[in-house]
Amino acid sequence: MSAKPFSFKLLKTDGMARRGEIETPHGIVSTPAFMPVGTQATVKAMYPGQVRETGADVVLGNTYHLMLRPTAERVARLGGLHTFMNWPHTILTDSGGFQVMSLAQLRKLDEDGVRFQSHIDGAKYHLTPERSVEIQGLLGSDIQMQLDECIKLPSPREEVERAMELSLRWAERSRRQFETMGGPEKGQGLYGIVQGGDVPDLRVRSAEELSKMPFEGYSVGGLAVGEPQDVMLRMLDITTPVMPVDKPRYLMGVGAPDDLLESVKRGIDQFDCVMPTRAGRHGLAYTRFGKVNLKNARHMDDPRPLDAETDCPASSVYSRAYLHHLVRAGEGLAAMILTWNNLAYYQSLMKGMRDAIETGTFDDFYQKTKADLARGDIAAL
Amino acid sequence: MSAKPFSFKLLKTDGMARRGEIETPHGIVSTPAFMPVGTQATVKAMYPGQVRETGADVVLGNTYHLMLRPTAERVARLGGLHTFMNWPHTILTDSGGFQVMSLAQLRKLDEDGVRFQSHIDGAKYHLTPERSVEIQGLLGSDIQMQLDECIKLPSPREEVERAMELSLRWAERSRRQFETMGGPEKGQGLYGIVQGGDVPDLRVRSAEELSKMPFEGYSVGGLAVGEPQDVMLRMLDITTPVMPVDKPRYLMGVGAPDDLLESVKRGIDQFDCVMPTRAGRHGLAYTRFGKVNLKNARHMDDPRPLDAETDCPASSVYSRAYLHHLVRAGEGLAAMILTWNNLAYYQSLMKGMRDAIETGTFDDFYQKTKADLARGDIAAL
Ligand SMILES: [Zn+2]
Ligand SMILES: [Zn+2]
Repeated sequence: MSAKPFSFKLLKTDGMARRGEIETPHGIVSTPAFMPVGTQATVKAMYPGQVRETGADVVLGNTYHLMLRPTAERVARLGGLHTFMNWPHTILTDSGGFQVMSLAQLRKLDEDGVRFQSHIDGAKYHLTPERSVEIQGLLGSDIQMQLDECIKLPSPREEVERAMELSLRWAERSRRQFETMGGPEKGQGLYGIVQGGDVPDLRVRSAEELSKMPFEGYSVGGLAVGEPQDVMLRMLDITTPVMPVDKPRYLMGVGAPDDLLESVKRGIDQFDCVMPTRAGRHGLAYTRFGKVNLKNARHMDDPRPLDAETDCPASSVYSRAYLHHLVRAGEGLAAMILTWNNLAYYQSLMKGMRDAIETGTFDDFYQKTKADLARGDIAAL
Repeated sequence: MSAKPFSFKLLKTDGMARRGEIETPHGIVSTPAFMPVGTQATVKAMYPGQVRETGADVVLGNTYHLMLRPTAERVARLGGLHTFMNWPHTILTDSGGFQVMSLAQLRKLDEDGVRFQSHIDGAKYHLTPERSVEIQGLLGSDIQMQLDECIKLPSPREEVERAMELSLRWAERSRRQFETMGGPEKGQGLYGIVQGGDVPDLRVRSAEELSKMPFEGYSVGGLAVGEPQDVMLRMLDITTPVMPVDKPRYLMGVGAPDDLLESVKRGIDQFDCVMPTRAGRHGLAYTRFGKVNLKNARHMDDPRPLDAETDCPASSVYSRAYLHHLVRAGEGLAAMILTWNNLAYYQSLMKGMRDAIETGTFDDFYQKTKADLARGDIAAL
């Protein structure tokens, strides 16, 4: 018996901005969607129920971390990643390739895949397109990613092209493995990843070739790797128009609130980024009026909350003076409150965009949000 | 206009065990009560609302830590400690003396008080009985402690006696300061602290002398400082019978679940201890069946929760395999879940004792709890 197939419904467009719904075996994902990062089977400093309450429909798990510890086979024996981490909603996993390149030791990449040693204990691994999809299947991921090669920018054109062509061959191998694993029958999706660095014609070739393969969605990879925002947006301007209209589009590893706004405007449906969670562990709060550094002494005697007008307790209950104290004192509650605040803010931004697209007022929302972000934090007392 | 006075009602006794109610400006404290430790204006790794939901009526704040950072004067300007840390229920503060002796640098104690340097930045302070009560008043503490000198055990009799007599003189000075500050009119309470180490006649003299002073409650100090449990219980056997019957009795810094059970049996009403919170940050869970070390590899593939029969999500939702993974991976969620589990267990133990005293079945509860604790954790899979 087959599950209901993975699906994407495009409900409404407003300019290039899209309002949609992805359906997976673990529920509906309203798009545009921000996916909190749950690297090691936990969104750091958050209870899973809390993550859900902020409005998240989907979280991201990292294949690289999970394959090392607790291992995909162990997670599978324990009932899959949803059960393991108490997240009964949709899970997206990356392919592991990006973290292998940034975290693992003694990496060696060839046509077959990539060999590396664990950053934890030095154990040797061989990650191939097939093994990556196998791992993601063992985890029970609803939305899986093909293995690709993501290079740093800027890089010479030949290098960008080589990596992009390799990623296309790996896309085919990933797809075959996904079908062998019965992913489509389980209602899961596999996304192909558009590469091509900052070279327009390579981006177009990558998107066009991938469009010929029957992926359930398409990612834009290889951006947000240190290039200026305008380069990233130019690449989106070139790439999204040649991506399938009837499939979700996921911009990987992005981004700051302004990046989300600009990318939705250019037709992106899904995002993930460590910014809100990482910032929360470093004393930084995201609010409607920009970033607030709670370490700053200006907050030491400030009884006001981060944002009195929101309904998230993290934003409206605790005083800045208290948050400053917790950050300075190195208390875990600082990370708990600030991560919660940050994820709640990110989700409210996404909801704002979704509502605006539905009512055909995305441009107003865009202008208003830009103005608020530019206004900056309330004046010191 | 005066607040309702601080009060203690002894509702029921069962043997030496007592069921009572303390009333403070911030509510009712059902006794016997366990008070989670909120050293730096936070019960580590817990939201304040969560602490309340476990059943805590009162938390403890540490005068030493708070006087250094954020300072008592700052907390007072910000509306007091209840407002500052979002805990609208009862707060008890210690005098600072114990932490000065264990954490501060270059301590020098004389008749007047104790001089020391901050462990944070080396700044110099002078803590006297008067200043301690002043700080606790600035914090807005509902239940305050006199400054005392707590010595390590074993110590020579002359040394124990000297410290006990000094503590008696400091008790008088503390009381005068408390009345100068208007503590009684605010409905706050000040507790005298029985010292005397492990010397029976000194314990008795300390308790009798303190009983002549009009304290709202009495603490038993200077125990749980490394001596064997039987020494501590012998001291309680000697001390509680000479303490006032109509005032609450607080055994400071105690303890393990078995210590609580034995001490309630001997007439103690209040406890505080860092054990459940500290253990939670080190991968240790308290359950009805003893302590569980989640770091242990036996949990790696165990899908069972800590205790399926409790209604606390921390105990009944997350698998041991997941908790093991979180602990091994160094994830903050481990401390969040385990601290929550441990405080919920401690509060359920206290509630069990309160209910048993009410129904005159304390001895049955005592036997059953001892047997459960002795049974140990469920067998490995
Ligand atoms: Zn990012
Ligand atoms: Zn203790």
